Amino acid sequence: MAGDAPGEFELIARHFAPLAGPGAFGLMDDAATLAVPAGESLVVTKDMLVEGVHFFAEDAPASIAHKALAVNLSDLAAKGAKPLGFLLGFGRTRAQDEAWCAGFASGLAALSGASGCVLMGGDTVNAPALTLSVTAFGTVPRGRMVPRQGGEPGDLVYVSGTIGDAALGLALRLAPDAPWAAAMTAERRDVLLDRYLHPQPRNALAPALLAHARGAMDVSDGLVGDADKLASRLGGRFEIDRVPLSEAALAALSAKPDLIETILTGGDDYEILCVIPPDQSLIFEAAAREVGVLVTRIGALEAAGSMRLWCNPDGRERRFTRRAYAHSFGTQES
Amino acid sequence: MAGDAPGEFELIARHFAPLAGPGAFGLMDDAATLAVPAGESLVVTKDMLVEGVHFFAEDAPASIAHKALAVNLSDLAAKGAKPLGFLLGFGRTRAQDEAWCAGFASGLAALSGASGCVLMGGDTVNAPALTLSVTAFGTVPRGRMVPRQGGEPGDLVYVSGTIGDAALGLALRLAPDAPWAAAMTAERRDVLLDRYLHPQPRNALAPALLAHARGAMDVSDGLVGDADKLASRLGGRFEIDRVPLSEAALAALSAKPDLIETILTGGDDYEILCVIPPDQSLIFEAAAREVGVLVTRIGALEAAGSMRLWCNPDGRERRFTRRAYAHSFGTQES
Repeated sequence: MAGDAPGEFELIARHFAPLAGPGAFGLMDDAATLAVPAGESLVVTKDMLVEGVHFFAEDAPASIAHKALAVNLSDLAAKGAKPLGFLLGFGRTRAQDEAWCAGFASGLAALSGASGCVLMGGDTVNAPALTLSVTAFGTVPRGRMVPRQGGEPGDLVYVSGTIGDAALGLALRLAPDAPWAAAMTAERRDVLLDRYLHPQPRNALAPALLAHARGAMDVSDGLVGDADKLASRLGGRFEIDRVPLSEAALAALSAKPDLIETILTGGDDYEILCVIPPDQSLIFEAAAREVGVLVTRIGALEAAGSMRLWCNPDGRERRFTRRAYAHSFGTQES
Repeated sequence: MAGDAPGEFELIARHFAPLAGPGAFGLMDDAATLAVPAGESLVVTKDMLVEGVHFFAEDAPASIAHKALAVNLSDLAAKGAKPLGFLLGFGRTRAQDEAWCAGFASGLAALSGASGCVLMGGDTVNAPALTLSVTAFGTVPRGRMVPRQGGEPGDLVYVSGTIGDAALGLALRLAPDAPWAAAMTAERRDVLLDRYLHPQPRNALAPALLAHARGAMDVSDGLVGDADKLASRLGGRFEIDRVPLSEAALAALSAKPDLIETILTGGDDYEILCVIPPDQSLIFEAAAREVGVLVTRIGALEAAGSMRLWCNPDGRERRFTRRAYAHSFGTQES
């Protein structure tokens, strides 16, 4: 059984106030002030996570906290923004007792500290299912936010990191006894499970995106569907055998080849998908290398009116059962 | 039965994009930019509302939308801030079908238009209960946000509007057949029900607060508990017979005198509670009159270490069963 849930004021004073940044008034006010440096624009983003939809209720509270903040940091990264602060909407159930809240706050503190994104305030309410609504703030040089839909035909499309690990991790959570899972080492299974639980926002890549990208977004709903959105003003051609895969994903794929669909459309990657003009590609790659983020060219934008194609190694188009992942595993179809 | 729920993209394109402000990229991006004018600070606030906790699922969708935005505008008003824009976290269930979403958007559009607070973005997710997480942005002259806990002993405490109507409206919703309800005219019952459904944020008062208030907050959890928070650095003395009541509340009170507890601690008022230095009181009253907002002096701050007292007309202290309202009517105690 869960222990007693702390009251709202104890919760804030004990667990959240230590994370408060300047302008947050120690979380004792209903609002906070943000000072936006002269010459900069504020970038705001909001991602909401619901128990049983975006995470499992039984996940470690520090992991849930990490994910709630990380997915918002990922949006800031894609926009080229430097993290500044966040608000936390905390819809809690009776299960969020003192120990749970302490674990949750420790997860928030770790990523908040690592990213420089400080807690500015929020709201704590009772809810029938744990619901986390984070609003994150960042800054870019005035007017320079990297848009989602920028770019011209011929621009190159890059993706950071490796794709599909988190979706395979979720598949492992949902069906741990699947034959392909049994065919993998425990170590590789752990890699995939961890990538689902602990997305790593690519904020280190933000300056390179600001300097070189014409368009960018983070990959949250599956690479194929998100590439559709990135290239929605134009056409695009993407090569499946260029998509960067981890060793663990390759092992899964060799055990069950049709997992390629999960990898490419499963979502939860929180990698960066971006559009780079051809004459910037080498310098962008070098800038990414310098901050330790792998970036891989997977395709190019094509003229408006052309298709958005995914090609197999033999050059033929691959079609997908569904192009994007709708987060709904626990509750309902979307 | 509910009709089909629109997909996320149809929902955004059809209902929310028409409300989008500049910098919101037509809601086609994962983030928005806010331009904060030179010499101003951004004020940010977040209030989260959950079905069955903060509103009834069967309320008109336009009313739910109004409330979700209004309670955030109320926080901006209390801070002296001018509304700028908002983000909407929309955790929806299957009940939010096309017709519901159209009604919801119309309610948002009305208050957004009236307040100048434009939609900047947000996130739409599936949730087991309708959950609305609004983050609102406003501006004040740099560094001038009105804090909650400002003020000195001897400063006067004012409240706007009338107190207790919304709490009585909620009581009517929960027990429509109570004898005190039957003793009232239908017209007065409607006034109370409407005050619960449609809080009127006091944004018109913001300039007067900026100019004259040393501290301010909005009354959302009950006047007595919120006055405790306002005066928490100091002591305070408040006079119950000075608390401004509507005709409808007076009628309820005459039918059932112990409703005074509901009136003073019930919450959902969304009026402004503020601290005004004595030498500013006349000019503050005049400034409020000019914008058509009733303000009433209900007490004064006292020296640190003294109590926070509520006095009956005979000068004796009144004690309350509970000083503040915890929003939890539908789901759980808090």
